[in-house]
Amino acid sequence: MTKQIQFVEHKAYNMRRWSIIAPATAGSGHTTTCLSAADIMSVLFFYAMRYDPKDYECSDNDRFILSKGHASPLLYAAWKEVGVLSDEDMLTYRRIDSVLEGHPTLRFPYTEAATGALGVGLSVGVGEALCAKLDQRDYYTYVLLGDGETSEGAVWEAVQIAAHYKLDNLIAIIDANRLGQTTQTMYGHTLKRYEEVFTAFGWKSFTVDGHNVKALMNVLDDARKVKNKPAVIIAKTIKGYGVDLVADKQGFHGKALKKEQVDPALADLKKKFPAATAFKADEYHWEPYIPKKCKTAVVAKCPLIRMPQPDYSRNEKIPTRKAFGQALSVLGSECSSVVSLDAEVKNSTFAEIFEASHPDRFFQCFIAEQNMIGMGIGFDRRGRIPFISTFSAFMSRAHDHIRMAAVGQAKLRLVGSHAGVSIGQDGPSQMGLEDIALMRCLPKSIVLYPCDAVSTYKLVEQMANYEDGISYLRTTRMATPVIYDSNEEFPIGGCKVLRKSDQDKACVIGAGVTVFEALKAHAMLAKQNIQIAIIDLYSVKPLDIETIIKVAKVSDLNILTVEDHYPEGGIGEAVVSALRNTGISVESLAVKLLPRSGKPEELMALECIDADAIVKKVKKII
Amino acid sequence: MTKQIQFVEHKAYNMRRWSIIAPATAGSGHTTTCLSAADIMSVLFFYAMRYDPKDYECSDNDRFILSKGHASPLLYAAWKEVGVLSDEDMLTYRRIDSVLEGHPTLRFPYTEAATGALGVGLSVGVGEALCAKLDQRDYYTYVLLGDGETSEGAVWEAVQIAAHYKLDNLIAIIDANRLGQTTQTMYGHTLKRYEEVFTAFGWKSFTVDGHNVKALMNVLDDARKVKNKPAVIIAKTIKGYGVDLVADKQGFHGKALKKEQVDPALADLKKKFPAATAFKADEYHWEPYIPKKCKTAVVAKCPLIRMPQPDYSRNEKIPTRKAFGQALSVLGSECSSVVSLDAEVKNSTFAEIFEASHPDRFFQCFIAEQNMIGMGIGFDRRGRIPFISTFSAFMSRAHDHIRMAAVGQAKLRLVGSHAGVSIGQDGPSQMGLEDIALMRCLPKSIVLYPCDAVSTYKLVEQMANYEDGISYLRTTRMATPVIYDSNEEFPIGGCKVLRKSDQDKACVIGAGVTVFEALKAHAMLAKQNIQIAIIDLYSVKPLDIETIIKVAKVSDLNILTVEDHYPEGGIGEAVVSALRNTGISVESLAVKLLPRSGKPEELMALECIDADAIVKKVKKII
Repeated sequence: MTKQIQFVEHKAYNMRRWSIIAPATAGSGHTTTCLSAADIMSVLFFYAMRYDPKDYECSDNDRFILSKGHASPLLYAAWKEVGVLSDEDMLTYRRIDSVLEGHPTLRFPYTEAATGALGVGLSVGVGEALCAKLDQRDYYTYVLLGDGETSEGAVWEAVQIAAHYKLDNLIAIIDANRLGQTTQTMYGHTLKRYEEVFTAFGWKSFTVDGHNVKALMNVLDDARKVKNKPAVIIAKTIKGYGVDLVADKQGFHGKALKKEQVDPALADLKKKFPAATAFKADEYHWEPYIPKKCKTAVVAKCPLIRMPQPDYSRNEKIPTRKAFGQALSVLGSECSSVVSLDAEVKNSTFAEIFEASHPDRFFQCFIAEQNMIGMGIGFDRRGRIPFISTFSAFMSRAHDHIRMAAVGQAKLRLVGSHAGVSIGQDGPSQMGLEDIALMRCLPKSIVLYPCDAVSTYKLVEQMANYEDGISYLRTTRMATPVIYDSNEEFPIGGCKVLRKSDQDKACVIGAGVTVFEALKAHAMLAKQNIQIAIIDLYSVKPLDIETIIKVAKVSDLNILTVEDHYPEGGIGEAVVSALRNTGISVESLAVKLLPRSGKPEELMALECIDADAIVKKVKKII
Repeated sequence: MTKQIQFVEHKAYNMRRWSIIAPATAGSGHTTTCLSAADIMSVLFFYAMRYDPKDYECSDNDRFILSKGHASPLLYAAWKEVGVLSDEDMLTYRRIDSVLEGHPTLRFPYTEAATGALGVGLSVGVGEALCAKLDQRDYYTYVLLGDGETSEGAVWEAVQIAAHYKLDNLIAIIDANRLGQTTQTMYGHTLKRYEEVFTAFGWKSFTVDGHNVKALMNVLDDARKVKNKPAVIIAKTIKGYGVDLVADKQGFHGKALKKEQVDPALADLKKKFPAATAFKADEYHWEPYIPKKCKTAVVAKCPLIRMPQPDYSRNEKIPTRKAFGQALSVLGSECSSVVSLDAEVKNSTFAEIFEASHPDRFFQCFIAEQNMIGMGIGFDRRGRIPFISTFSAFMSRAHDHIRMAAVGQAKLRLVGSHAGVSIGQDGPSQMGLEDIALMRCLPKSIVLYPCDAVSTYKLVEQMANYEDGISYLRTTRMATPVIYDSNEEFPIGGCKVLRKSDQDKACVIGAGVTVFEALKAHAMLAKQNIQIAIIDLYSVKPLDIETIIKVAKVSDLNILTVEDHYPEGGIGEAVVSALRNTGISVESLAVKLLPRSGKPEELMALECIDADAIVKKVKKII
């Protein structure tokens, strides 16, 4: 045991060295936050965790999430000590040609989740721990958090849900180093506070000296034995531990040591850890604790998913949100990888239809959207296909998490219901009016907005097969008639030309509810002998610009977009941006006044996005 | 006392009646959540709160925030019983011509905060309670939350900060009616859970039977006596209390009673509350407890703010984020209404400069952006001018709160630093690359993006005077040279033409860092005898489209926008959208690849938004 402890201390010492050297070489980076957590990390990587270092993706490996992402040098140092990175690699830290980024991203293949926005990691851990239960695998998920990070509400969302699901395969460690970026954390070294709060929330809490390797080994053993609840280890640490210049001092957060400070700092370390310094590699033979292949494990896979044709009748009125629920349920039957996450609105989004047929793969996340997205990242990382649904307006609650999911290239399938003023009486707080803008500006995202049940159903299939990033489906509260045959196809990046003639004076582009306003306008204008083309823009990103141009060319080069969304970043701007420099005229109708409660048709009239407004505008532009 | 209790019970009875009648008349609305909280509301409005019903805005009134905004009928019913609404008014609930919206907005003048997205109200309360302390006023702030709502992390951010600031003038009441929209809440009627968690976080916790008026009166008295910590009252209630059809039953959330169910329901109420039914108005004379005018109160007002000219020298290199801090500090000296809220990054945003000169008006909100925005709404509602700053990327953490601030027409001044890939090595998690898109699509928002210290300073003054909605200032990490004289003016909706000649072949529009890339490109192109105009688009919303068109007309109708932001919803789309149908060609450079860590100049080159990319593009389009 003594030799093993010395070995772990030696590894911690080496990690501290790299946590000084790598940032100093880069000229930036968070050294002091690594120095506080080095002992924890060493115990995790060289004692507690069971994993095959040569097979990171092995489904039975314990998982480690660095929620305090600014301690990235420590993560890289751990993997350096494990043996997958070289000295040279470590010196590339933060270089543009390196995968060792300032905050960990998935470009470094040993990263479990892209972090750097605080308060995301524990939710990812909740997702992975739940996934382990679902898959009947024995692995544990470890999440290292900063103490300052616990002021983020997202952490407490995860804490509540983890207790609710009794995740005894989830172990959180808080590196309580007392110092934030500019001031002491709210609780400083009053560890009792954390302990009491976690306990009150239903966790098993441990406190430990975060620089005592033996104590850390013991407490991590104990944490693994906890049953029916998650465990948290609150580790009292010193920020900058081991280097006199910075230890326990304010003013060194996010600062690399200067070149001239490196040697004195390394000398400090030597002095502070004489045994670890003197330790020779051959004094202890470390063998990774490679986990057994789990025999009972569930392997859920579905490479390319094909759903049976839907069974809707033309003109049948059905809300797209309901068609989503129906489609998701069918998808779930076709593909056992699919899971559904709900923020306590399943009867509004109709995720409840999935729940009814696949209760084991439905996860109630309660009213905690941030954690729900984080959980989705975890499910995705562990090979599941998460469909995450809530009101489109409340997707905005989790936008930073969604942003981080995009940074981590997680393949989340997001579904936002109750889009636009057409929800009616519930009023502006419940209306998704910026969701298209928010979802468009995610790298590699796609944004889909079907108008009827058939297209919704088909787009759910498309989302399941979209592997390049986040896909977003916008659904409508009110019932809309089915306008497509069941065998119609809806490829990503396409659109549908619903009306077209040789006499068209303009082309109206709608999506969702405004498709039907455009169709009404078409009939009204036809009576006045004015012909227009109509496009259903079910794919807002990417855009089928080729078809739009083709139709515009036979519509007197007049385009009118109509959307139940604010103008900024919406359909109008997307179209006008894509059509720039083509000579095609584009006018747009969108929600311009702060909406209020009222009947859907009243609000659509008030905002000038209904058939009357379209008719008026068309007559003006032709 | 007995008569008083009967009076309060009678008022609760009346409120229940309206909570049934108003939604049933409207055909939608959340009746059952009102029935659970009616006794609490009655005790608050007719016993506990000290306020002048005839002078809602009186600065000494206690404040009430309905965080569970879906219980809006109960809020309106309370004010109906107070006497400011008529029976006819109540029957306009949810009508488009009514101010009684589905969820309360500021259009109803007795609303303290627009709610409806859950988890916002308590943060607004924290802001108001802190404001009371700052203003040395004696009023209390009461916040009514739903139990399901406490799964929102934002609630726990507020809980932590309220304890940190020892807000003994803040009283939260949780209507623990056990049932969420579709399932039981995580803790159901295990009130002990809430009690223990709040206590652990440093609050004084009370539990009470939420339908026992006398007990509610006593506990509200006790809560008001708590010193040095905030108090929470966890009230055990029954959802739908008083109406057999719905009481304690799942499936009635968010549902109005059908017309034919109203009479039986009202009959139930009569049977359930015989004394309240029989109570005659003349049996008890209620006098509102009108608070004394607070003699020690601080009145902070500054109608139109003028700051002295700044003192920067041309070519002096200074980051705009630092200029913001300097300007804010000066502004604070000119205007005592200004407060600064920071999310533990004050040395990055330079809010620390304000803190140094005005420590009493600087509020550390720790790493909890949602609560920080909510606090800002509270400060604004109570007459202060909040400047709220953090990294632009982390503004996205609070987007739902910002959205709700816009719904409530709060005049928040938001400042996001570390915009774009130009921050360099810290990597994508820390880069604000969607903030322009997110801030543009808020009703009545303005978006400002200065490139140098002078324009930053002047725009801070503009923000202080902007009263129509949210203003957003985007600042840069790196130092940029001063290019304007100190007496230059920067009106909202303007832009600056930095270079212009008769030979211009194109006009490059930059903002922030890209202004300097454009200037470099100008010099490079000049050497090749290619002249271009350059515009500094410091006001992204609203746009100075007139000037842009004027310059474009003498630049061969060629515009090139360059921005350190994703293309969607950014400067390029804003400009192309505004220039539609003018015949002006617009090309755009923006951040199109998922960024990574690297030097600022490397990243700007990688993303093709640097001078070289501009030169290349200009040569292509002319």
